[in-house]
Amino acid sequence: MLRRVLCTMLFMGAFPSPAEMSQGHISVVLLGATGDLAKKYLWQGLFQLYMDQVSSGHSFTFHGAALTALEPGQKLMFDVLKKLACPPDEAPDRCAVLKDQFLKLSQYHQLKTAENYTVLNREIEALLRQEGLKEAGRIFYFSVPPFAYTEIARHINSSCRPPPGAWLRVVLEKPFGHDLESAQQLAAELTSFFREEEMYRVDHYLGKQAVAHILPFRDQNQQFLDPIWNRHHVERVEIVLKETVDAKGRTSFYEQYGVIRDVLQNHLTEALMFLTMELPANLSRTEEVLRCKLQALRSLRGLEKHSAVLGQYQAYASHVQEELKKGQDYVSTTPTFAGVLVQSDSLRWEGVPFLLTSGKALDERVGYVRVLFKNRAYCTQSETLRDAGHSQCKAKQIIFYIGHGALNTPAVLVSRNLFRPVMPKSSWREVVGQPDLHVFGQPLSDYYVYSPVKERDAYSVLISNIYHGRKDFFITTENLLASWAFWTPLLNSISHQPPRLYPGGVENQNLLDFEMVSGELAFTAAEPVELLNPDRSMPSDFKTIQSKFRQSPLVSAWSEDLISQLASDVEKAANRAVAGSGQFHLALSGGSSPVALFQRLARHHYAFPWRHTHVWLVDERCVPLTDPESNFFSLHNHLLQSIRVPYFNVHPMPVHLNQRLCVEEDGGTELYAKEIAALVANSSFDLVLLGLGTDGHTASLFPDSENGLEGTRAVVLTESPVKPHQRMSFSLFLINKARQVFVLVVGKGKHDITTQISRVGRQPRKWPISGVSPSSGQLVWYVDYEALLG
Amino acid sequence: MLRRVLCTMLFMGAFPSPAEMSQGHISVVLLGATGDLAKKYLWQGLFQLYMDQVSSGHSFTFHGAALTALEPGQKLMFDVLKKLACPPDEAPDRCAVLKDQFLKLSQYHQLKTAENYTVLNREIEALLRQEGLKEAGRIFYFSVPPFAYTEIARHINSSCRPPPGAWLRVVLEKPFGHDLESAQQLAAELTSFFREEEMYRVDHYLGKQAVAHILPFRDQNQQFLDPIWNRHHVERVEIVLKETVDAKGRTSFYEQYGVIRDVLQNHLTEALMFLTMELPANLSRTEEVLRCKLQALRSLRGLEKHSAVLGQYQAYASHVQEELKKGQDYVSTTPTFAGVLVQSDSLRWEGVPFLLTSGKALDERVGYVRVLFKNRAYCTQSETLRDAGHSQCKAKQIIFYIGHGALNTPAVLVSRNLFRPVMPKSSWREVVGQPDLHVFGQPLSDYYVYSPVKERDAYSVLISNIYHGRKDFFITTENLLASWAFWTPLLNSISHQPPRLYPGGVENQNLLDFEMVSGELAFTAAEPVELLNPDRSMPSDFKTIQSKFRQSPLVSAWSEDLISQLASDVEKAANRAVAGSGQFHLALSGGSSPVALFQRLARHHYAFPWRHTHVWLVDERCVPLTDPESNFFSLHNHLLQSIRVPYFNVHPMPVHLNQRLCVEEDGGTELYAKEIAALVANSSFDLVLLGLGTDGHTASLFPDSENGLEGTRAVVLTESPVKPHQRMSFSLFLINKARQVFVLVVGKGKHDITTQISRVGRQPRKWPISGVSPSSGQLVWYVDYEALLG
Repeated sequence: MLRRVLCTMLFMGAFPSPAEMSQGHISVVLLGATGDLAKKYLWQGLFQLYMDQVSSGHSFTFHGAALTALEPGQKLMFDVLKKLACPPDEAPDRCAVLKDQFLKLSQYHQLKTAENYTVLNREIEALLRQEGLKEAGRIFYFSVPPFAYTEIARHINSSCRPPPGAWLRVVLEKPFGHDLESAQQLAAELTSFFREEEMYRVDHYLGKQAVAHILPFRDQNQQFLDPIWNRHHVERVEIVLKETVDAKGRTSFYEQYGVIRDVLQNHLTEALMFLTMELPANLSRTEEVLRCKLQALRSLRGLEKHSAVLGQYQAYASHVQEELKKGQDYVSTTPTFAGVLVQSDSLRWEGVPFLLTSGKALDERVGYVRVLFKNRAYCTQSETLRDAGHSQCKAKQIIFYIGHGALNTPAVLVSRNLFRPVMPKSSWREVVGQPDLHVFGQPLSDYYVYSPVKERDAYSVLISNIYHGRKDFFITTENLLASWAFWTPLLNSISHQPPRLYPGGVENQNLLDFEMVSGELAFTAAEPVELLNPDRSMPSDFKTIQSKFRQSPLVSAWSEDLISQLASDVEKAANRAVAGSGQFHLALSGGSSPVALFQRLARHHYAFPWRHTHVWLVDERCVPLTDPESNFFSLHNHLLQSIRVPYFNVHPMPVHLNQRLCVEEDGGTELYAKEIAALVANSSFDLVLLGLGTDGHTASLFPDSENGLEGTRAVVLTESPVKPHQRMSFSLFLINKARQVFVLVVGKGKHDITTQISRVGRQPRKWPISGVSPSSGQLVWYVDYEALLG
Repeated sequence: MLRRVLCTMLFMGAFPSPAEMSQGHISVVLLGATGDLAKKYLWQGLFQLYMDQVSSGHSFTFHGAALTALEPGQKLMFDVLKKLACPPDEAPDRCAVLKDQFLKLSQYHQLKTAENYTVLNREIEALLRQEGLKEAGRIFYFSVPPFAYTEIARHINSSCRPPPGAWLRVVLEKPFGHDLESAQQLAAELTSFFREEEMYRVDHYLGKQAVAHILPFRDQNQQFLDPIWNRHHVERVEIVLKETVDAKGRTSFYEQYGVIRDVLQNHLTEALMFLTMELPANLSRTEEVLRCKLQALRSLRGLEKHSAVLGQYQAYASHVQEELKKGQDYVSTTPTFAGVLVQSDSLRWEGVPFLLTSGKALDERVGYVRVLFKNRAYCTQSETLRDAGHSQCKAKQIIFYIGHGALNTPAVLVSRNLFRPVMPKSSWREVVGQPDLHVFGQPLSDYYVYSPVKERDAYSVLISNIYHGRKDFFITTENLLASWAFWTPLLNSISHQPPRLYPGGVENQNLLDFEMVSGELAFTAAEPVELLNPDRSMPSDFKTIQSKFRQSPLVSAWSEDLISQLASDVEKAANRAVAGSGQFHLALSGGSSPVALFQRLARHHYAFPWRHTHVWLVDERCVPLTDPESNFFSLHNHLLQSIRVPYFNVHPMPVHLNQRLCVEEDGGTELYAKEIAALVANSSFDLVLLGLGTDGHTASLFPDSENGLEGTRAVVLTESPVKPHQRMSFSLFLINKARQVFVLVVGKGKHDITTQISRVGRQPRKWPISGVSPSSGQLVWYVDYEALLG
């Protein structure tokens, strides 16, 4: 019956007159029309869209859909629709009329089978034909669980595409995968049904008014921000979403995801991008915005295990045990709190700490993005005698206040001693009052404060942007995958790490406070013993173990801990050498294993005596130094460009002489040997770092090599079985003159060769590594658990 | 009569009994015994010494001396002595007895002629003989104007030296010169009369209890400070002495010295040294302390004109005009306020700003040394719900409070969230109370606060240290000269700079607030117009002038401004080139003129696109690259080691091939030309920087050079008329292919050649510089006023 009412009464007043109809008709299909999100936000957002656009020249119909059969589904849906509220700023009369029209334009569909979709499509076509309407486009809003995506997408693609000339927009809700791999898989599936420009992935944070205003704010205040929006002026940035609720009732989702996937990977990362991206010349050019954002995302420095501190509220375990029917011995390492230190390698932001923090069961509900500027001023007048107003010695900050908390409204705050910002008067108004309120360490009166003229729900904002085709308010596939590529290594490295337990609420006190220590994060307070679960010991808790390997000392640990130990030992060797002779001669190998060591040295060893260190290469590929295949190039990228070794102390191998590579008569090997003899006393390096190949090679000394395994030449040319074939390398003779030799072996792939050489004697022709045996120096093996234990 | 009384009554009770006499006798001679300093501090200090050491086993006599004749002098002196006060913690009875004894042990001498000194010496000898006393030593305290030093020193040296086995200590009061040259001269004179270990130069700040405790504090709290007393943890250091008094009545002194010589060069620099010096292993080893201090002083980065902000209180001009009988048109540029940004190049402190500030006619009288630590913490709990006690998010600071101000006592303050310091209980006690008092942005209750058990005047402390021979409480000659070497360049460069005028007192408001901007200081508020003296325009106020020189654009200014303009122009050229082609090819000349440019680029141009810049050499001396004579070595020292140019982008000239220098057949010139051709499009450099020699040479192209002035070879070997003779150089042909050529000419020594070449045509054989004329590029001359105008 309802259906008939709709069809007959539909077009009186609700559709524009023919003159206005030139824009065409838009069909909105809401999949999951009776679900929680739809009830809470989406229908209201669609109603808002209708109210805003009723006079735009577009006509609309709204199609709710679900798996439920027609009659009960209709009832469920219209129960929701009847409760739609008129916004406070809308005239009640107009609203009542529009709500009535909106109800008439809405209908329910059961969408379950392929047939259902074909029918829906036919009905839309029939309606349009019947009314003589041109079709502008169709919006399909997926408010359904992700496992249902592929099926629905296939149906839409095969049965519900609009005719040529009209657009299709499918709106997708998170989660968009669980890690890089699953996100890639999901993206690949969707891409087989929809074109990139057809997909609108929602991150509702992009619809939060304070977040959505970050870029316009930066654009409109360029004159003030240009000189200060960079690493020279910004001290730190905090991006925070705190919740008081816990995960109770949602553990089946939460236990799989945790706080990083739930909040940091998406919401906080998106806010971070708006802050750090280069400002496009024209904000209205969607592609330009998206390109700049992607570039910012890609210039983030990789995260490591110690980039994060993790917590879990104490009752979480029992919530999981109850809801997921787990036994008392089930231990969850899912974090419900995380603080992560993110850094960018861009010229603008290098060195600025971005602290992303979120958690459940905290003391308050609040979200904000806070940019704190460095204090570079000295105020000569005593504090008590200073003019409080604009003193340059007060903190300088800009805060995009997302909502809740002390202010309980979205807001933009700018310290009065910074500048009076340009704000669009139509959408933001200046707020005065509440002089007693303190936010971020200062009275509210220290800030210029602006709040929205009209507070808008994030979904209303986003639905409006879908309608306007503003793709920059949504997550592109590239953006999504770049974000997962950034977060996945951290997620992997912490997957077995036990989070710190916290009681929840205000009792957390300072238990979750953390601090930055040489590029890492750590909780400031020690973990109270009473909260520790005695059964929570994990493999990563094992300490570095020490024993013997091939009669020499062995250091073993999980790879990250191993690298960190090795880096410390290298620094110790350096300090010892510098204290003794005033310099440190360090010879480094190529290959992939040492890269982690180089990065560790560059990022965590600020006090390393680089000025007194000479850096040599153990081996080199016969390619130009600027070739990405070059060992030196990798060393430069991962270490040298971040530290300060004097130019004269850097000694790349002379593989490129007279415009040709490793030609015997150019005498490169002799040249390098002479350079060594001239600078390194007795050609005994203080430290030689070696690796181990799966064939038992070390340096570029391969099995059965003609050169370098025997004899007394210091530097030799060799042939590698893999490309690039030609190499230059230290000989065993030179290696064995060193005072210390460290061999680094990392990864499962090295397990077999590690096992093999642990059993053999000195057979350098077969296993060159077995010939490493410093004549009067020390040999130490650094082998990670995977290589050692498989 | 008094004399007779002294001689007969002197030794009853005042001298120790024979058993205690083993330590011997000390004669203290106070020159200027009736002057202001003696009246106010020195006699009281000597009385304190006597009270403290009366039972030490030493016996004492005190000889006041002045130019005044005996009788009036005696009266003047004893009027002072009668007013000597007993310290509050001394039993009044004991004090009265000791004061009586002290008076009896004191006598007045007129010391004017050589004869007077001989008589004094005879009297001391006679007294000792008469009493059968062994002489321990003599202290001569110079409380006289510096012009009298030499004369007195000569007399003491020739007539008043104690016999072998007894020591001589002469105590000198500042000023110790007016700049490096005068200090050297004064030091040389004194050194001809006294050995270094005999001289005790007083800086009374070293006797201030809070200053004197800096080193012991660092030593006793090493466990806490070791990890944080460095650039990674210290945000800034403020060393401040504010006065409310003005210079009225003292302008004859002040007009010659100003605030930097009066306070910063000595007092504040000494406090700075105690903070920054490496901690000696043993604080009681005076030489070790002095060596570490000297090393710290020498590792300070050189000051430039913009390292300081200067002020003068408004009434100063009229005080000078009145007191020095100057006319209304007399303009004084003497600063009465200064803020100076000092930086250290030591590994520990590199990059940490040390702000030294002092001034007269300010809002309050206070002195302090404040170490502010970086805030690296994030506190998860909302501020209002945080435990106020030890939150890691509160400011962390250590303050050595010298005196006056809100606390009105010397004190040591340590933030409670840092650590509870170890303090010697016998001399410092913990203070509680005054919870409402706020200091340095926080309530006093946020700090552990300690004040001296017994407040001691600085001169008492110093006189005690003279007695104990603790030379580390005094300024050695090396220390003094190193300090002047540090301050003199700044004093020279600001000598004509008009200071900002300020009204004085609390009316100064924020007028003297200043801030750090890329390594320089600037006032934060604009100078109010009503305070400006319309007649105060000075040569340094002239703006950079622009006109033509040899038909090309000319930029001219005082040298520092010129270099700053040139550095900006180089950065502009770099940004333009990088925006265009992605890279910037910059060729730099050797010699001394560009050093200032290199330093400017390294220290002030943080945003320079170094990663995309290739650095080439215009010319090179045929010496190894690590030879201090090498142009590349100088470039490396002054620029490359401070910035981040990729290794591959640095192109030293190949003057050193096959272990020999610039041998034709080694083909260095061809090698460099090929490298240029391979990397620089069309061998057209984006920018070539040249200099000009007094003989008209540029690059290493000398008059009548066989190579490089004509023809089309790019790089050539040449001969210099001065050592080292052999050179490698760009040819005129290569230079003239550049897109831009900047020629920098600085200093009076270049005036003649500048004048000459301004008049001649193109005659490269005679004046190689005249052959510089880019075929399609731009030539700009940067000539300072001294070179241009003589």
